[in-house]
Amino acid sequence: MSDTVPVKTVADVQAIVDRSAYLTWLGLRIERVEPGIIDLKATWRPEWVANPDIGQTQGGILASVLDFAANFALIDHAGGPVPTVDLRIDYHRLAKQGDLVVQGRAIKTGRQISWAEATVFDQQGNLLASGRGTFMTVQKP
Amino acid sequence: MSDTVPVKTVADVQAIVDRSAYLTWLGLRIERVEPGIIDLKATWRPEWVANPDIGQTQGGILASVLDFAANFALIDHAGGPVPTVDLRIDYHRLAKQGDLVVQGRAIKTGRQISWAEATVFDQQGNLLASGRGTFMTVQKP
Amino acid sequence: MSDTVPVKTVADVQAIVDRSAYLTWLGLRIERVEPGIIDLKATWRPEWVANPDIGQTQGGILASVLDFAANFALIDHAGGPVPTVDLRIDYHRLAKQGDLVVQGRAIKTGRQISWAEATVFDQQGNLLASGRGTFMTVQKP
Amino acid sequence: MSDTVPVKTVADVQAIVDRSAYLTWLGLRIERVEPGIIDLKATWRPEWVANPDIGQTQGGILASVLDFAANFALIDHAGGPVPTVDLRIDYHRLAKQGDLVVQGRAIKTGRQISWAEATVFDQQGNLLASGRGTFMTVQKP
Repeated sequence: MSDTVPVKTVADVQAIVDRSAYLTWLGLRIERVEPGIIDLKATWRPEWVANPDIGQTQGGILASVLDFAANFALIDHAGGPVPTVDLRIDYHRLAKQGDLVVQGRAIKTGRQISWAEATVFDQQGNLLASGRGTFMTVQKP
Repeated sequence: MSDTVPVKTVADVQAIVDRSAYLTWLGLRIERVEPGIIDLKATWRPEWVANPDIGQTQGGILASVLDFAANFALIDHAGGPVPTVDLRIDYHRLAKQGDLVVQGRAIKTGRQISWAEATVFDQQGNLLASGRGTFMTVQKP
Repeated sequence: MSDTVPVKTVADVQAIVDRSAYLTWLGLRIERVEPGIIDLKATWRPEWVANPDIGQTQGGILASVLDFAANFALIDHAGGPVPTVDLRIDYHRLAKQGDLVVQGRAIKTGRQISWAEATVFDQQGNLLASGRGTFMTVQKP
Repeated sequence: MSDTVPVKTVADVQAIVDRSAYLTWLGLRIERVEPGIIDLKATWRPEWVANPDIGQTQGGILASVLDFAANFALIDHAGGPVPTVDLRIDYHRLAKQGDLVVQGRAIKTGRQISWAEATVFDQQGNLLASGRGTFMTVQKP
């Protein structure tokens, strides 16, 4: 029964991060996990720099953290990480050197398909990027 | 005059890659550059793995190479790398361990805004992901 | 000077609707206009039905009202309707016969490009569709 | 068995159009239907005009025909029209008064989810809009 699935905690999601080479490389630190909600930080590293002249973080890093946050905003509904079907990312502002503050929120959950959105800020609270995606949340029998 | 801008070559784009920490980390090897066209490969590395149980490459890596390829399909039109305004990525198939084969193609070029699409295959020619984006190609005076 | 531009009112936006054949056909009734915010309704008509067996409103109608609401959430910033650069729409639930309740909200305004999102509900408050778009908000000299 | 499903013809798809109030209102004339491919025209009508000063066709009309063409490029795979999960539309050029020439093409078909793209031209062959979407092509038992 769906209502016997334990609610996921910050420690549960951090454990998934810590087993993943890529998520560890992104330096993800999970701060809040509630149904439909996840807040986290990503830790800057020199390999993120796209262009040495302006020092900005490459858009693919922002895409990675947006994808993760939207996906894991659905973890209570889906029971675990799920396949991303598609993702849209809007790049609002050049991301300079520094850690990223990331929020994921469910938009609509369904039995086969669910949608979630995410937002990335810098440490000063400037909006860097936002986006939304479609996720395959088929309930396995 | 626009027609005096030298056409960009494989060596020109590879030089941009080689100066960039992130693009070097992605192991990008440029293979073909023509107006509106770029073909390249990305070299697998262990840090790309999202989930150790299934060994798949995280979607953000695919987003990174799609963003690069779409952006650089516009390099002759734009004269250099340009800001990505937004990006849509469709994830068609789980990306297993291995290098990526990437193609970028211009859709429509304009004076302020241009659009391009890109496709990612594995080394066996399976379609892994595709997408399209909007780019700010304002011609600087 | 930007701060001398009069703030747009419900009557201003309704007047734009009333001059437009298509917006009139959509039966748009503007209910609230504030900087970065618009609320409106669209009036169902028999021509909206896509499939007579299930009576649902075609997705293009939802796309039309989402595009309008996102665009006009930017009207105070832009000074008037602006070109839509691109739009993403998520279809959450089959839209049955009935009027539509639509909300548009600015995400981020810029001098050349701005982003806004919009949401469509049925009259019972069910979420039918949501989306976001990129708009060309170049300030004319 | 999947290979006993009859291939859909131009007449099959035109019959679906002719039963639909909205598709009839769009004046859709189907010209070519092959697996993964559809070509059609949409017939201009005065209600399409968004702004009487510039006479352009509203973006929602372009969204409607793009959605239809992408969806029906999958009709042989899916066996019939399917729910659109999400759609991205890029608006490349102002659409003036006139009929629309529309092409839909499958990108990738799957058992649960498929993707297709579509393109809209004016009668002079100018690219007006293009886009891609995700469709729910679950095979019913």
